[in-house]
Amino acid sequence: MEDNSIQQALLADTPNVLQRKPSEGAKRFRRSMSTPSSDPVQTPHEKGSSLKAKELFKEMRPSFRLVGFLLFIYLLVGVIIFYCVMDQISGKQTNRVLDALYFCIVTMTTVGYGDLVPDNDTTKLLACAFVFMGMAIIALFVSKSADYLVEKQEVLFFKALHMNMKGGEAKMLRAIETNRTKYKFYTNALLLVIAIVSGTVFLWKVEKLSLVDSFYCVCATVTTLGYGDKSFSSKLGRIFAIFWIIMSTIIMAQFFMYLAEIYTERRQKMLAKWVLTRRITKMDLEAADLDDDRQVGAAEFVVYKLKELGKISQEEISSFLEEFDKLDVDHSGTLSPYDLTLAQSNQ
Amino acid sequence: MEDNSIQQALLADTPNVLQRKPSEGAKRFRRSMSTPSSDPVQTPHEKGSSLKAKELFKEMRPSFRLVGFLLFIYLLVGVIIFYCVMDQISGKQTNRVLDALYFCIVTMTTVGYGDLVPDNDTTKLLACAFVFMGMAIIALFVSKSADYLVEKQEVLFFKALHMNMKGGEAKMLRAIETNRTKYKFYTNALLLVIAIVSGTVFLWKVEKLSLVDSFYCVCATVTTLGYGDKSFSSKLGRIFAIFWIIMSTIIMAQFFMYLAEIYTERRQKMLAKWVLTRRITKMDLEAADLDDDRQVGAAEFVVYKLKELGKISQEEISSFLEEFDKLDVDHSGTLSPYDLTLAQSNQ
Repeated sequence: MEDNSIQQALLADTPNVLQRKPSEGAKRFRRSMSTPSSDPVQTPHEKGSSLKAKELFKEMRPSFRLVGFLLFIYLLVGVIIFYCVMDQISGKQTNRVLDALYFCIVTMTTVGYGDLVPDNDTTKLLACAFVFMGMAIIALFVSKSADYLVEKQEVLFFKALHMNMKGGEAKMLRAIETNRTKYKFYTNALLLVIAIVSGTVFLWKVEKLSLVDSFYCVCATVTTLGYGDKSFSSKLGRIFAIFWIIMSTIIMAQFFMYLAEIYTERRQKMLAKWVLTRRITKMDLEAADLDDDRQVGAAEFVVYKLKELGKISQEEISSFLEEFDKLDVDHSGTLSPYDLTLAQSNQ
Repeated sequence: MEDNSIQQALLADTPNVLQRKPSEGAKRFRRSMSTPSSDPVQTPHEKGSSLKAKELFKEMRPSFRLVGFLLFIYLLVGVIIFYCVMDQISGKQTNRVLDALYFCIVTMTTVGYGDLVPDNDTTKLLACAFVFMGMAIIALFVSKSADYLVEKQEVLFFKALHMNMKGGEAKMLRAIETNRTKYKFYTNALLLVIAIVSGTVFLWKVEKLSLVDSFYCVCATVTTLGYGDKSFSSKLGRIFAIFWIIMSTIIMAQFFMYLAEIYTERRQKMLAKWVLTRRITKMDLEAADLDDDRQVGAAEFVVYKLKELGKISQEEISSFLEEFDKLDVDHSGTLSPYDLTLAQSNQ
């Protein structure tokens, strides 16, 4: 029974940050973890406040829809402008609207084949303005679509893990955390292979390039190299290119992003392991002792280790402590319901 | 006197994470901050352990030198290979070695003008291999040179701030933290302007392009667009291009990197402000109370706020607490020198 409730508490992702398994030392606390003293509303409320913070955080980032809308406006304006100046663009032309859109995509992704190039000064300066704006939008899109991809697949991911995992919940939670980046990376790698194969087959079969030339053109495109000796020259080819170029260059950028993420994560885990297993000395205890009672409590230990890991800065801790001092109305060195009552009566 | 010692302690960046100004509540603690109880060796030792962690962290990242060495090897191998197959590369050629190096740089930065393009299958596949490897090295270089730039200028930065700042040390420390990203961004923006102006002037005066064409070619290069209708065609131009292209594309990439960093920082500050000033309820106190003594100490408050901010995960806290339990040999719920003595005698 007791084990079960703890299990549920862990699964519910409660923000009660220091909930422990009873086997690991609950008995040493003055009030046991398994006998909640008060308020049954506690958990929902905590969840609420934590969710609010997360939602605020999300709201402050431009949403996926907003970035999609920006991209749409950018392309719409681009097509209208380059449609008007298409006579000042030299190169093999097919359909005027299609070519304007194709030129926008090739420019904003910085592929820049050069199969369509501006021919007079105005058009050249327009292209300059468009490439800078386009780069910013693509950069936003890369980060946003990565989030979107992950959010969509997280459910699937959790289910897959639940099916195969045996063992404790802590172990499962740890496995989820550990594998999340790897899972994102593998999904992305698969998408990259699909992009490369589909592009190569298209150029080979539809644009009638040789197999090597097709692969060469695909590599030159996904990396945004775009020598331009091989490119999409048919009407059908440019329709395909509009969608394929934007997808494949974003996938390629994400590939490098996730690779860096995996590397960083591994580095941080190594550091964390080293910091955690490092031998503790009396000097460490002195340094970790916040309230100078010559003892280091669990929370003091956590804060000390976080500082050592470089996870929090002195600045952050100072601002937290300032807030703590404000809340500690009775200056007892701890916060208790009495402080809250005092604060309310003062107002 | 007392104020001075606190001042020095703050400036010395001691890892004593919860050192406070005496005015902010030192008197509530059982032992005052300004009367250090013990070991005079404390501070140097703490510094030592914190530095060790930081150095380990640095060692685990490939150093700036290693990345520079990788770049050198990459270019050396590239020059040798493309020197040998230069007959299979079509386009305006100047000096065989210079052209091989120029081709490598234009390829690895993904500028890809297309003024020199591989002409047979082997050379095309070689170029494919080189662009992927080159991208990875450039990505490493972008992140490393950013660190290098900042490290070099941090001293200067600190001095400049010390000259102008009035007021408390906490305020100064906060100002340094706040402005660091902005400072990096401004330095980078200045470098970008220098790169754009120098490139434009060079193309205008040496390559004899028109002023608009020069600026157009510069924009097409720094963004790695590289249409290729305008490029470096003279011997002198390609010597300049080798250095200028690699510098300017890296500076441009960093520009976007710092822009994203400033944005993220501002977002996090807004979230932190919201989380910190949010009204605290009795339920929050319950949730934050780690040791269930119905009081929330300063360290418990810090840990709770960090969890709310999403700065630390349940997984991390659990691993910290596991380590804490191991260290707490006498199961008192706190660490004291007695625990360390017990642990030693057990071994």
